[in-house]
Parts: sequence; structure tokens; C-alpha cells
Amino acid sequence: MTAKDRAQSILDQHRALVDAEISHLLRGRADLPLYHMLRYHLGWSDGEAEDKFPAAGKRVRSTLCLLACQAAGGDPQAAAPAGAALELLHSFTLLHDDIVDEDEVRRGRPTVWRLWGVDQAITVGDAMYALANLALGRLSRSNLPPATIAAAAFELNEATVTVCEGQHLDLAFEGRPDIGVTEYLDMISRKTAALIAAALSIGARLAAAADETTDALRQFGHHLGVAYQIRDDILGLWGDPRQLGKPVGGDLRKNKRSLPVVYALASAEPEPRRKLAADLAEGVPTDAAIAHIIAQIEAAGARDYCDRLLRESQETALTQLDRARLRDQEAEDLRSLAAYLMERSE
Amino acid sequence: MTAKDRAQSILDQHRALVDAEISHLLRGRADLPLYHMLRYHLGWSDGEAEDKFPAAGKRVRSTLCLLACQAAGGDPQAAAPAGAALELLHSFTLLHDDIVDEDEVRRGRPTVWRLWGVDQAITVGDAMYALANLALGRLSRSNLPPATIAAAAFELNEATVTVCEGQHLDLAFEGRPDIGVTEYLDMISRKTAALIAAALSIGARLAAAADETTDALRQFGHHLGVAYQIRDDILGLWGDPRQLGKPVGGDLRKNKRSLPVVYALASAEPEPRRKLAADLAEGVPTDAAIAHIIAQIEAAGARDYCDRLLRESQETALTQLDRARLRDQEAEDLRSLAAYLMERSE
Repeated sequence: MTAKDRAQSILDQHRALVDAEISHLLRGRADLPLYHMLRYHLGWSDGEAEDKFPAAGKRVRSTLCLLACQAAGGDPQAAAPAGAALELLHSFTLLHDDIVDEDEVRRGRPTVWRLWGVDQAITVGDAMYALANLALGRLSRSNLPPATIAAAAFELNEATVTVCEGQHLDLAFEGRPDIGVTEYLDMISRKTAALIAAALSIGARLAAAADETTDALRQFGHHLGVAYQIRDDILGLWGDPRQLGKPVGGDLRKNKRSLPVVYALASAEPEPRRKLAADLAEGVPTDAAIAHIIAQIEAAGARDYCDRLLRESQETALTQLDRARLRDQEAEDLRSLAAYLMERSE
Repeated sequence: MTAKDRAQSILDQHRALVDAEISHLLRGRADLPLYHMLRYHLGWSDGEAEDKFPAAGKRVRSTLCLLACQAAGGDPQAAAPAGAALELLHSFTLLHDDIVDEDEVRRGRPTVWRLWGVDQAITVGDAMYALANLALGRLSRSNLPPATIAAAAFELNEATVTVCEGQHLDLAFEGRPDIGVTEYLDMISRKTAALIAAALSIGARLAAAADETTDALRQFGHHLGVAYQIRDDILGLWGDPRQLGKPVGGDLRKNKRSLPVVYALASAEPEPRRKLAADLAEGVPTDAAIAHIIAQIEAAGARDYCDRLLRESQETALTQLDRARLRDQEAEDLRSLAAYLMERSE
């Protein structure tokens, strides 16, 4: 079994519990196109036939949460409402991201704003976040202590504030040539890693894990999230367009910053740096110009730097996972899933 | 004391408790422009000096919540976190509304999207909603039973879903000449009345009120919310521009539907209806054209109809308030505040 198949199998094992929670939340709602748009974004309909799941997300965050709960000795069923909340929350941030980044395609289909306009897309995202909170509220149907549920809700909403901080910084960075590597890593810690860290930590809490285990799993999630984003940044410039399903250099076209660019602009010698900054400032570049820019970034040593930082984050993540003292089988599943996420080529 | 002064005094009495909760939530956050934008939208800074409160909201929803709690025999202090959540939630919907409606001015100042762009404004709104949920979480610091807190959180987030449904319908109505009065009233019930109803019902719940009292206060809030919106619609066409601080016919200019227009299009004779629909479809009209359109709407009997419906909603609201069996003084305050909101001319 390949690493990808193994990861897919782990994700598939936890999907049904979470999807059942989301289905339950949507049942009996008013018959409005709003919910059609929302289901479409979740990949639950293709705009024509319902329930064909043609483009559903991978459910990474909910799977990490349920696995963490089980690995720390808890019942993953009890964590399913938190898993649903994490998926709805993540989907809501993607929906608003698509507007902000003017992305017209997600998972091979037109984005919500592209089909129904920015105004409706903002509203669908807001509704999805409200549903995420309702999902979390269903934790109170379990036998979990109220203080545990309150702590999980606090952590989820604090993570959401942090994700918004990351989004805010990402927007503020656009076009700026003077972002430092530390600043950039702080941004992705907030925008990407915070919710993954929260997923693991909430899973541990719902298993009534010891503080040390909860903390180790949170740290594992943080470094996994950072590594995941660095891998994404590397693939964005040096991935295989056929495997990725999109051309390389998308961020460059949109004047968005990624780690290789930030590193190259911060570390190259004055002359190559001046040249790269000037080329980046040119506006929407041609394919040939993109290839030329990527070559400059590579010449500045950015690819090696990113690979090294990715390996460091991976190792730190796995060290934290070892520190968590988990059930063997679930720890192995977490390790497999993390390895796939940090090493994927698509 | 005028009705307005009386209402202002009631609002002022409850402001400090709620603002202290919001301040607490914002304390110690990362030093990011995001929070400056957020405070600006709350009216807590004018972009230069902080804490001058030049344009803070009226705090209607939090005041209704705290008064309902007190009127039903509870401690308004215990309800302050819910009040903060309601205000942050309402502010978040206004922030996204301003983007959707392309409103450039709110309370005499440029809107957030106008100053910092649509992308940052979406993000600030999202962060504000996350903070609303964190505000609500602070209810667990009180001695309230966990089931009561869970019920309040459920009601707040269900109301938010309903507000999004209303926003969705409002957007879908734009430019449509065939909206029925019933459809329109259903839309404002969701977009405007749902959160006001939730404010009152949550206040009652936090006082451990009898179900009948909670239900009566919710109904009071619903009809108050509908009446408030009808009054808004009436003022939008027949208000005094000097008192309102904005010209009449704003909705007409934006091709948005309001009750008088919906009524006129649904009830006028065929020929005047055809003429009105054609004039509305003309696109952005001149001041003279606006005056002419308003005259046609009035000729269709829309003003009388709206006045009548407003009076009916007012009476139903006050009947429900009587049914709630509240403490005398607080019931009187609720009555005064409601009367002002339903009869205001600004």
C-alpha cells in the first residue's frame, strides 16, 4: 500500500461519523438556495444532482481530531461533533479565501463566488461558520463534563480568531518586498497551523487526556501545520502541474508571498535581489516570465532552504508525537497521515 | 423627558457592563492593524485617537437582553457576556452588510471596506464573529447551569443562521418586481427580527424564567423587530433627511426592496404598477425621479398600509410583553425602549 493509499484509508475510516453530524445539522432547514450553495461548497452536490460527493474535502482536520481523541484513550464517536465543527469552520475559511484570492476553481469546480456572486458567497460562508458553532454545541449531548466542552469551544473560537489574524497578515503582505522569513512563518502559524493544532488538542481534551499529552498533541499539530504549508509553498513553484491539477506559480501571478519568494528576497545578494524584486513588481507575468522568476528564486538557494525547514518541522512534529504517549495503533495512524501530508506531491 | 431621552437613558444604564466584557475580550491580543479596524467599526476609535467612542452603536440588542434578564428576576451582570456576544454578532453582520450593500458611510464615518478594502473587511467581520462566540463562552464563569448556557449558545447561533437566511433572501430579492408582501415579511423576520427575538429570549433563559415568560419575551422581540424594520422602511422614503442624516430613497437607488415598494408593486392597478416597475428598472435614478417614484408608491396606498402594519406589530409586541409577567420597573423600561424603537423619526 502506498503512503497515499494508507492516508486515504485512514481518512475514509473517520469520514462517516463526521458527515453524519453535518447531515444532521442541515436536516430540516428552510428550503432556500442558500443551503444548496453551502452543500455545493462542501462537495455534496454538483449543482445538479445531490449527494454524489464529487468534490468533498479530504476531512484532514476532523480525522486528526478523532484520531487524537482515540489515541489518548477516548471514544472518537464523542468527538464527532467537534470534527464536524472543524470541517465546517475550515470550509468557511476556504469559502471566504476564494473570494479574497479571486480563485475561480476549487477541486475542479467553479467557486461559490464565481457561480453566485461575492455577496452571496460572503453570506454562505457566514452561515457555515454559524453551523460550525451549532455542530460544536452538540458535544453537550454526550456525557462529557461541561468544563471540557467549554474548553473545547474556547479553543476552537480562539483558533478562529488566530486564523483571521493570519488571513489579515497574508493580505497585508501582498506585494510587499520586505517580508522577513520569521514574519512569514508567524503568518502561516496563524493562518494554517492554528486550526490543525486546535484539532489535535481538542481531540485530546475530549479524551480527558493528561495536560502533557494535550500539549504534545497541540505542538505536533502546530509543526505539522507549518510543514504542510511549507510543502504547499514548495509544490506551488516546483510541483508537477499534472499531479497538482493547476499550473505552477499561481501565487506569483497573484502577487502573493510564499516562503521561497520571501527567502529569496531576504537572502539573495543585492543585485539578484534587485532584479527579482523588479521582475515580481512587473504585474501579471507570462509563463516564460514565471519560469524565469522561479529560476532566480532557486538560484538564491530558496529550494534547499525550504526543503531543510520542512525536514526540521517534520522532525519536530514527530518528536512531539512521541512525547504524547499514545495508544500504539492510533499513534501509527497519526504518523502515517502526517507523513503523507508533509510529503505529498499533489 | 422626551421618549428619545428616556430611551437613551435606559441604553446608557446598560452600556458599561457590556463594554467591559468586550474590552476584556480585546485585551492582550496581538498588536495587529486587524484589531484597530475592529475597534474602529465598533466606534471605539476614529482611526487616530483611541477610546473616544465617537460613533459607537446604540447597544439596543444587549440592552434588551440585560433588561429581559432583570425583568424576569435575574442578575443583569450574569447576562453581560451574552450582551457582548449579541453586540459583536450584530456588528459583524453590519460590517458584512456594508460590503454587500456597498455602503460607504456608517454613523457619519467611512465604512471599513471603504477604508481598508473588501478583503480586509471580510476578515475583520469574521474575527468579530469569532469574538462573539468567545464572549458567549464567558457565561461559563458564572454559576449558571451548563444546560442553560448551552441553550443560550444554541439560540444565538441558530439566530445567526436565520440572519444569514434573511441576508440571502434580501440579496435574492434585489431587482425582482414580483416579491409578495408575505415573502418580504418573512425575509425581515429572519434578517432583522430573529436576533432581537433571541436577545430577549436569551435574557429570560439566563434568569431561569418560566417557559411561558421566555416564549412571550421572544414573541415580543419578534414583533418589535418586525415593527422596527417597517419603521425603517417608512423612514427610508418619508423620513426627514436632516434628522436621518441621509437622503431619502437610498434603497431605491440601490434597487433594494422595502415594504412600501413591495406593497405598491403587489397591490396597484395594472397600469400604475407597470409604470412603477418600469421606472424602478431604469437603473440609478435622479433626485427628481426618486421623488416621482415615491409619489407613485404613496398613490398606491403603500404609506397607509405600512403605517397600519406597523401599528399592528406594535400592538402585538406589547400584548406579548404583558403576557410575560415581569417585574414592573423593568417591564416599563422595555416598553419605553420598544416604543422609541418603533416610533423613532431618525
